[in-house]
Amino acid sequence: MNKSEKKSDSKQAIFDISKEENFPDWYTEICKVAELADIRYGVKGFTPFLPWSVMSMEIMFDFLEEALHRKGHLPMIFPTVIPESNLTKEADHVDGFTPQVFWIKDYGADGELEERLALRPTSETALYPMYSLWIRSWRDLPLKRYQRASIFRSEVKSTRPFLRGREFLWIESHNVFASHDEAKDQVMEDLETTKEIVTGIYGVPVMVFKRTQWDKFPGGLNTYAADTLMPDGKVIQLPSTHDLGDNFARAFDIQYLDENNETRYAYQTCYGPAISRIYGAMISVHGDDKGLRLPYTVAPYQVIIVPIYKSKNEAEVMEFARKIESELHEAGIRVYLDARDTTPGWKYNFWEMKGAPIRVHIGPREVRDDKVMLFRRDLMKREPVSSTGLIEEIKQLGEAIDKTLLEQAESKFEGLVVDADSIGTIIDALDKGKIARVEFCSTDMDGYDCAGRIEERTSGEIRGTRIDTDESPQGVCVICGKVAKEIVYIARSY
Amino acid sequence: MNKSEKKSDSKQAIFDISKEENFPDWYTEICKVAELADIRYGVKGFTPFLPWSVMSMEIMFDFLEEALHRKGHLPMIFPTVIPESNLTKEADHVDGFTPQVFWIKDYGADGELEERLALRPTSETALYPMYSLWIRSWRDLPLKRYQRASIFRSEVKSTRPFLRGREFLWIESHNVFASHDEAKDQVMEDLETTKEIVTGIYGVPVMVFKRTQWDKFPGGLNTYAADTLMPDGKVIQLPSTHDLGDNFARAFDIQYLDENNETRYAYQTCYGPAISRIYGAMISVHGDDKGLRLPYTVAPYQVIIVPIYKSKNEAEVMEFARKIESELHEAGIRVYLDARDTTPGWKYNFWEMKGAPIRVHIGPREVRDDKVMLFRRDLMKREPVSSTGLIEEIKQLGEAIDKTLLEQAESKFEGLVVDADSIGTIIDALDKGKIARVEFCSTDMDGYDCAGRIEERTSGEIRGTRIDTDESPQGVCVICGKVAKEIVYIARSY
Repeated sequence: MNKSEKKSDSKQAIFDISKEENFPDWYTEICKVAELADIRYGVKGFTPFLPWSVMSMEIMFDFLEEALHRKGHLPMIFPTVIPESNLTKEADHVDGFTPQVFWIKDYGADGELEERLALRPTSETALYPMYSLWIRSWRDLPLKRYQRASIFRSEVKSTRPFLRGREFLWIESHNVFASHDEAKDQVMEDLETTKEIVTGIYGVPVMVFKRTQWDKFPGGLNTYAADTLMPDGKVIQLPSTHDLGDNFARAFDIQYLDENNETRYAYQTCYGPAISRIYGAMISVHGDDKGLRLPYTVAPYQVIIVPIYKSKNEAEVMEFARKIESELHEAGIRVYLDARDTTPGWKYNFWEMKGAPIRVHIGPREVRDDKVMLFRRDLMKREPVSSTGLIEEIKQLGEAIDKTLLEQAESKFEGLVVDADSIGTIIDALDKGKIARVEFCSTDMDGYDCAGRIEERTSGEIRGTRIDTDESPQGVCVICGKVAKEIVYIARSY
Repeated sequence: MNKSEKKSDSKQAIFDISKEENFPDWYTEICKVAELADIRYGVKGFTPFLPWSVMSMEIMFDFLEEALHRKGHLPMIFPTVIPESNLTKEADHVDGFTPQVFWIKDYGADGELEERLALRPTSETALYPMYSLWIRSWRDLPLKRYQRASIFRSEVKSTRPFLRGREFLWIESHNVFASHDEAKDQVMEDLETTKEIVTGIYGVPVMVFKRTQWDKFPGGLNTYAADTLMPDGKVIQLPSTHDLGDNFARAFDIQYLDENNETRYAYQTCYGPAISRIYGAMISVHGDDKGLRLPYTVAPYQVIIVPIYKSKNEAEVMEFARKIESELHEAGIRVYLDARDTTPGWKYNFWEMKGAPIRVHIGPREVRDDKVMLFRRDLMKREPVSSTGLIEEIKQLGEAIDKTLLEQAESKFEGLVVDADSIGTIIDALDKGKIARVEFCSTDMDGYDCAGRIEERTSGEIRGTRIDTDESPQGVCVICGKVAKEIVYIARSY
C-alpha cells in the first residue's frame, strides 16, 4: 500500500451530539463509536465491555482497592455461586433479592444438581456462613475483607451499558465488628472513601443520603448512599454502604467470645462500589458534545502522540516522536504513539471523541525547534512547549485537567437543590432537572404512604435525608400536614 | 489485657509435614493453616480463596497482564454467560465442553429464560460471534485481546483447591490474524510468555510439549502446553496455547477483505494461563516441610518486621520498627510490621509457615547499634546488616531468594527424563516419579490405540512431543513395533 495515500479509516471519528439536549442518544452513540461496549451480544442485559472502557475500569478498581487495602481491608475471592439454602436464611434479604436471582440446576448433557445454585446477586449469604466458622473470639475482630466480583441480577428495568445491566462489576466489602459503634464508624469511613475516590479521583461530585426505611438494603438496619446527577436531570445511586446491625449475625450465627468469655453477636457492615456503573456515570458527567472527556487519572492513555509529516520528513519526525514516547513511558505516563496510516486531522477527531486528556503534536517544525504542541481535551486548547521539561508540564497539565473537570461538574451541582412545599413546586423543580428539598413526616415506615403519593404524582423518589449537612425541619409534611420529622430530597432517578 | 502476658494466638504456627513423603497431606494442611483457601463452602469444587493466596494471585495476574499488554494485547470483559446456541456452532468444541457446562434456565421466583445460558467453560463461543461483527477488513487485523475471567466446569475428577476446581481463575487471550503463519508465531510467543512469567517470575520450571491429536483443544488444530512436575512425581499442565487454524473462523464466520478486496477466513489462536492453578503448582514446587516458600516477586508481604522487646524498651523498639517500616514502604517494598501481641518465636514460626521471603528482626540491641537482623526463609539463614543501605540489601536478597528457589526447582527437573523402551521400563520410570522418553509410532489419530495401551498398562499419559529440543526417532514404536515417527514423553499427571 502507498503510505502517502493517507486513507481515512472507515470508522467514524467526528462525534457531534448535544449531550444536554439529547442525553439518551448521546450515551448510546458514544458507547458505540468510542467502542466502550457492544450491545449486540444477544442476551438481554449482558454486554461485552471493550478495551477503552476496561482499561479505565481496571485503573478505577486499582484506586478503590488501594484505598480499601490502606484502610485495613484484605481481598478474598469467593465462588460465583451460592447454595439456595444459604440465600433463605435472612428473611428480608430473601424477599429483597430472590426475584432477581438466576438459578443453576442442570449441568452437562443431563446432570442435575442436588441443590440449586444462585449466581450471586450480592454476597452476604456466600460469605457470612464462612464468617460464622472463622470468627471465634474478640481477637478475630474486626474482620475487614473485600472482593472484586461480577454480580448478576435479572433486572426488570430496561438495561443500559454500564448504568444498569444484568451482570455488572463491583467491589463488595464485608466487615465484622465487636460493637455497633465500630460498625457505624465503618459506614462513615466508607462514605469518606466514596468522596476520596469517586469525587477526588474520578471527578464525580456526590450528595450523601441516609435512605428511608422502605428504601434500605434488604435485611440491614440503615443504608447510606451517594447520588450524583446525570445530564438528563435524573440522579443515579453510586456506592451505598449498609449498617447491618446484628441482623445477619443472628441469621448466620456469627458470634464471638468477648474478653470476659461471654458469647456475643457481632455487628456488620457492607459497602458496594459498582465500578461499571460509576464508569457510566463518570463518562456521562464529564463528556461533551464532541465525545468523552476522561480524567487524566483514569484515562487508558493519558497522552496521545500524533506525528505530522510528509514523506520527505517522516523519518526525522517519527524518530523524535519515538524518543518522546519512550521518555514519557519511562516516567510512568500512559502514552500511545498513534502511527496509524491516517491523516493528523482524523486522529485529532478520533482522540477527541475517545476523550484522551492530552495530545502531543509533533511535526518537522517541532523537531527543528526541539519543542512540541500540547493539546488539552477538556478546554480544547493548545500551546507550544519546550520538549525539555515536558514530563513535568504534562503532569501539571493532567492535574489541571482533572481540576477543571471536577469544577465544571460541581458547578452543575450548585443551585441544584430547590426548596419546595407542594406537589406543584416539586414537579416544577423536577421538570427543570433539579432536586426538591421538602419537609416530610417520617422516613420510618409510617412515612411510606406519603412517599408513595409523592412518587405517584411527581414521578420523583425520596432519596433520603442528608447526612453531610446539618438541617432540621421547622414545619409540616408536604403531603399529610403532620409535624415534619425530617427534611428529605426528592429527585427523578435511574 | 496485660500486654506482658504475650499469650500465643490459638492458631497453629508450627508446620511440620514431609512434602516429599506425604505430598497430599502437605498440600491439604498448608491450604488450611496458611489460610489460602477454605474447603468448607459446601458446594463441591467451589472454594473461597483467602487473602494470603488472593494477594499473591493478584500480583501474578498483574505480571501476566503487563506482559500481554506489552506484546500488543488489550483487555476486554465479556459476560459470564453464553447462549446455548453459540456453544453448538463448532462441532468438536461442543462435544469437548458440553459435558462440563453448568446451565441457567430459571430466574426469580418462577421466571424461565427463552434460551438456556451456559456459565462459560471457556470463551471462544462468547467472543467469536462478536469478532465476526468486528472484523471487516485486513485493517482490523491482527486483533489481539484478552480477558481475566472466572471459568466454570463441572469436573468429574476429584477437586482440590487451586489445582482443580469447578470454578477457577484465568486469563484467556483470543487473537485473530490474516495468515496462518502469524497465528503460528503467536502460539510461539505465548510459549515464550509462559517461560518469561511462569518460570522467570514465579520460578516454576516447565517443559513444553506439542500435544497429541487426541489430547488437543476441542475444535483446534494443534495444542502446545507447558507441564511442570509436582512433588508427588506427577506432572501438571500449566498454560496451554492453541493454533485454531481457520476452524472457528469458518464456524463463526470470521472473514475479512484482504488488500485485493477478496474475502478470506481469518486464523485464530487462544492462550489460557489459569492463575489459580499456577498458584497451586507454584506453592507445591517451592514449599518445604516447614510450610510455604513464596518468591519475593509475588509474596503478599515481601518483608515482615518482627519487633522484640520487654516492657521497658517497647517504645524505642517500636519507634525504630515503624521508621524502618515506613522507609521500606516508601521504597515500594511490600512490608508488614507484625505488632501482634504474641511472642517473637511464635511470629517466626508463623511467617515461616506462611512463606514470607524475608524477615527483619529488631530488638533493643539493633536499635542501639542502628542495625537489623535479616532472615531469609528459603535457606532459613539470618545475618545482621546495618540499617543504612537496608533497602538495597533487601532488594538484592529478594533477587537471591528467587534465584535460589528457581535453581532448586530446576535441579529437581534435571535427570527427570529417563529413556524407556518397554512397558516395564516405562513403569519403572513412572514409579520413581520420572518422565519416560520413548519412541512412538504416531501422535496423529493412528497412534491413539497405542497410547491407550500405554495408559492402561502404566497409568501414564503421553504428554506429547518436545518442541523446545531438537530430537528425531531412530527406532520402532514401544508398543506396536512399527517405525517410530515421534519421540514422546510419558508421565503420570493431574
